Amino acid sequence: MATFPLNAWYAAAYDVELGRSLLPRTICNQKIVFYRKEDGTPVALEDACWHRLLPLSMGRLEGDEVVCGYHGLVFNGSGRCTHMPSQESVNPSACVRAYPVLQKHRFVWVWPGDPALADPALVPDLHWNDSPGWTGDGKLIHVNCDYRLVIDNLMDLTHETFVHGGSIGDRAVAEAPFVATHGDRFATVTRWMEGIQPPPFWAGQIRHARGYSGAVDRWQIIRFEAPCTVTIDVGVAEAGTGARGSEGVPGDRSRGVNGFVLNTITPETDKTCHYFWAFARNYCLHEQRVTHELREGVARIFREDESVLEAQQRAIDDHPGYTFYNLNIDAGAMWARRLIDRRIAAEASPAAAGRAIPIRPAA
Amino acid sequence: MATFPLNAWYAAAYDVELGRSLLPRTICNQKIVFYRKEDGTPVALEDACWHRLLPLSMGRLEGDEVVCGYHGLVFNGSGRCTHMPSQESVNPSACVRAYPVLQKHRFVWVWPGDPALADPALVPDLHWNDSPGWTGDGKLIHVNCDYRLVIDNLMDLTHETFVHGGSIGDRAVAEAPFVATHGDRFATVTRWMEGIQPPPFWAGQIRHARGYSGAVDRWQIIRFEAPCTVTIDVGVAEAGTGARGSEGVPGDRSRGVNGFVLNTITPETDKTCHYFWAFARNYCLHEQRVTHELREGVARIFREDESVLEAQQRAIDDHPGYTFYNLNIDAGAMWARRLIDRRIAAEASPAAAGRAIPIRPAA
Amino acid sequence: MATFPLNAWYAAAYDVELGRSLLPRTICNQKIVFYRKEDGTPVALEDACWHRLLPLSMGRLEGDEVVCGYHGLVFNGSGRCTHMPSQESVNPSACVRAYPVLQKHRFVWVWPGDPALADPALVPDLHWNDSPGWTGDGKLIHVNCDYRLVIDNLMDLTHETFVHGGSIGDRAVAEAPFVATHGDRFATVTRWMEGIQPPPFWAGQIRHARGYSGAVDRWQIIRFEAPCTVTIDVGVAEAGTGARGSEGVPGDRSRGVNGFVLNTITPETDKTCHYFWAFARNYCLHEQRVTHELREGVARIFREDESVLEAQQRAIDDHPGYTFYNLNIDAGAMWARRLIDRRIAAEASPAAAGRAIPIRPAA
Repeated sequence: MATFPLNAWYAAAYDVELGRSLLPRTICNQKIVFYRKEDGTPVALEDACWHRLLPLSMGRLEGDEVVCGYHGLVFNGSGRCTHMPSQESVNPSACVRAYPVLQKHRFVWVWPGDPALADPALVPDLHWNDSPGWTGDGKLIHVNCDYRLVIDNLMDLTHETFVHGGSIGDRAVAEAPFVATHGDRFATVTRWMEGIQPPPFWAGQIRHARGYSGAVDRWQIIRFEAPCTVTIDVGVAEAGTGARGSEGVPGDRSRGVNGFVLNTITPETDKTCHYFWAFARNYCLHEQRVTHELREGVARIFREDESVLEAQQRAIDDHPGYTFYNLNIDAGAMWARRLIDRRIAAEASPAAAGRAIPIRPAA
Repeated sequence: MATFPLNAWYAAAYDVELGRSLLPRTICNQKIVFYRKEDGTPVALEDACWHRLLPLSMGRLEGDEVVCGYHGLVFNGSGRCTHMPSQESVNPSACVRAYPVLQKHRFVWVWPGDPALADPALVPDLHWNDSPGWTGDGKLIHVNCDYRLVIDNLMDLTHETFVHGGSIGDRAVAEAPFVATHGDRFATVTRWMEGIQPPPFWAGQIRHARGYSGAVDRWQIIRFEAPCTVTIDVGVAEAGTGARGSEGVPGDRSRGVNGFVLNTITPETDKTCHYFWAFARNYCLHEQRVTHELREGVARIFREDESVLEAQQRAIDDHPGYTFYNLNIDAGAMWARRLIDRRIAAEASPAAAGRAIPIRPAA
Repeated sequence: MATFPLNAWYAAAYDVELGRSLLPRTICNQKIVFYRKEDGTPVALEDACWHRLLPLSMGRLEGDEVVCGYHGLVFNGSGRCTHMPSQESVNPSACVRAYPVLQKHRFVWVWPGDPALADPALVPDLHWNDSPGWTGDGKLIHVNCDYRLVIDNLMDLTHETFVHGGSIGDRAVAEAPFVATHGDRFATVTRWMEGIQPPPFWAGQIRHARGYSGAVDRWQIIRFEAPCTVTIDVGVAEAGTGARGSEGVPGDRSRGVNGFVLNTITPETDKTCHYFWAFARNYCLHEQRVTHELREGVARIFREDESVLEAQQRAIDDHPGYTFYNLNIDAGAMWARRLIDRRIAAEASPAAAGRAIPIRPAA
């Protein structure tokens, strides 16, 4: 059984990673070479020459085309072979697969499934990563686990108490009640902790940004977007200033500080993933020191998760067929898994099979 | 086909290895976490949280209980879950497997099979390791081979001539006649070399301990106790002073020096093992220098065996189904193997199947 | 399906590698130990003791025999056991397989197939490696790829343009027409480039050796000898001095410089190989500086090939069942592959099966 749907936009690289050189990266078990054309447009090609399978990423760019590093076959950005050594004519069937690819919200996204379904409107919403009024920074981590274990981890923040006891862990979170909701594509977990003393991290942020010390209303709003994106809206505001809002009416967060932990986790293989994250905030926008501190702070915390997630993957491999038991805290993760499973099942159905993805595009 | 019986006490750790922290160790293909309660009693639990399988050894001790390092589930020394995060009630089926475990003769022993059969009287006899009149020290080696290859090695000491030519190797041993006997649980190989000049090692020991130089009666009495313990009674006494005794009557060893090489080899997996050994002696009891020298001397010799045993394992893997030929020298090892095979076969029989081991104890 | 025929002489070592010590080497998936007798004759035995499978290469030489490093069994150069520990008689079936082995053209050759077919006249022709009038040197490289990928590489030199662009790469070669021929055991690819300016390498050689600067006739004559030997006759001569000769009549190369790239690639396993090569020349025979420079220059170039070949092997593993497309430039490699395939198929046929190779020679 597949562990991920193919018909989805997956983050393949940070925008700044991709330039005028050949970047090999495996996405959903497929080896792909990425590069930018001279005008900056990203290209994604199957990373194996049609002739003898040498990775094209071992060749070189020539204008907007790739030259294979073994026998010099040339492929254009659509994957078509435009030159063969020592012969005048080019075999018309000679091509490599080209993937739909685009850039948005500071990531380069690739669609490993049926190209006919690659609607740019389906790119996950990570607009905080490049919108006015928000600033921040992030990283890419390679984790040796099924990407869904990262989703599980993000959908339940009570683990902070036990995994991150030395930094952001906080009994208050494990004890606060939460509300879980879901739709066809989204699942959310919302926690409000009102009129509390802020934990050290948030106390520091609100004092620095707003000059405020005292009780706060604190929120954590986790939002999963199938199949593999999780945004976490976090922050605190002066207690009683209406940050929470009421049913259907957004609150007033002007007396607070707000951040978004942006996460999108791309399957590399069934048991490894590329974990892209960023932390965006709406305060102290021009203080590079704050950006740097938040980025490194989050990176430290995610390294603790990495160690737990990789151990969990090894344990799962040791227990094939293990039936997992869900606790109350797993409500959000459980819904995220169901939304993923539905998309995988839809692609495995006979109707979907009619839309088989051509591995080698027809001539 | 199994390579070891499950219904047996296996050494899991030296007593001093186990304290108030979590010790993960794989025994007979089962991942187990060991620790001591506040009163020193050893505990052995399945090393995988009931909830998400994270190794409990990545968590922490809290009193006599273990707290999982991911979501904070708490398990007591019987493996029962006593606390779950963010919920009042605890799922009554929530538990991990607890193994029978006890401490004896300086080792912590675990029983990976049917707990109902775990009779403390079945712990192998290694009493020389903590009896008055004996002293010594030992080590734990991890060897990348089937534990039975170590047994083979110990049951035939002619290999000393070829593997340990630089240290204890001695043509006399390869040439001395031996007697092999066996019962249901034991197999022995006995060699007496009477009226000989002692080899350098024993000449040194008897001169230092008894002030004696001259001809000796020398013995090597190898005793296998199924499934994986081998004691080797070795020593020399002044020639003709009756050390050998006669049929059924123990000899007089008072004019000699005597040591016991104690070995118990625990399967880690089918192709790796934990090899615990010690050397106990009945002379110069208070000379720490002698203890140190003997421990390091034996350790050096066992490293030579390790290299041979690991090469042999790789060769066996390269020759699946190879039929081994036995020489005269293999009589002891052959009997040891038969006793092991019988116990494995007994556990595989339909009668034994009726006593299936519950992996998860019932609530 | 086998990747190599067994009935062939395969280079196992350079002559100078083999002396009075035990050299373990895997040839065609078979672990073999090589050594020389006191009179220098090479011996090749199965590298696993009949008794407990320990590699004999972990033992030691005693005269013309090998003593096993575990229990001291002794085997002679025919593989027969001549001594067993602690017993007078030797089991007459005790032996290890002995392989036909001989030395020729500076290599030690072993025949892993049916010994009855091991005709010394079938050793590949690499006489330039030790003939008067020729000098040179070579190396052994271990490459993690199917030996046939190395053959493919050598049978088409247009890859020089793309893989070796920094050194010997040359558009002229990729553009020159070639002629491919084949027989039952040989396949050739011949390129003549007449009246051209020599590339830097050859310009330097002919100026140094013959004091000549100017236009040349240049040749590359690649000759494959099944299953795994490729000689490449390369050189330049003053243009128009008749180096090419005519149909059936050898040319006059006296006004030129000539080298032979000698290659024989021995399968180690199905996906790794021992690549033996040498470069022999017929000029400046006594200049050690030239020998050194050519050897290191070729070694540098072959390291570039190694990186491509290993990447190609990984890509092939990633694409099981991939159908390769052939270009014009693949004519020579295609014929080499067919000659190899025929020999593999012949060994797999029922007739060949009648000549089964005894793994353990009969007593």
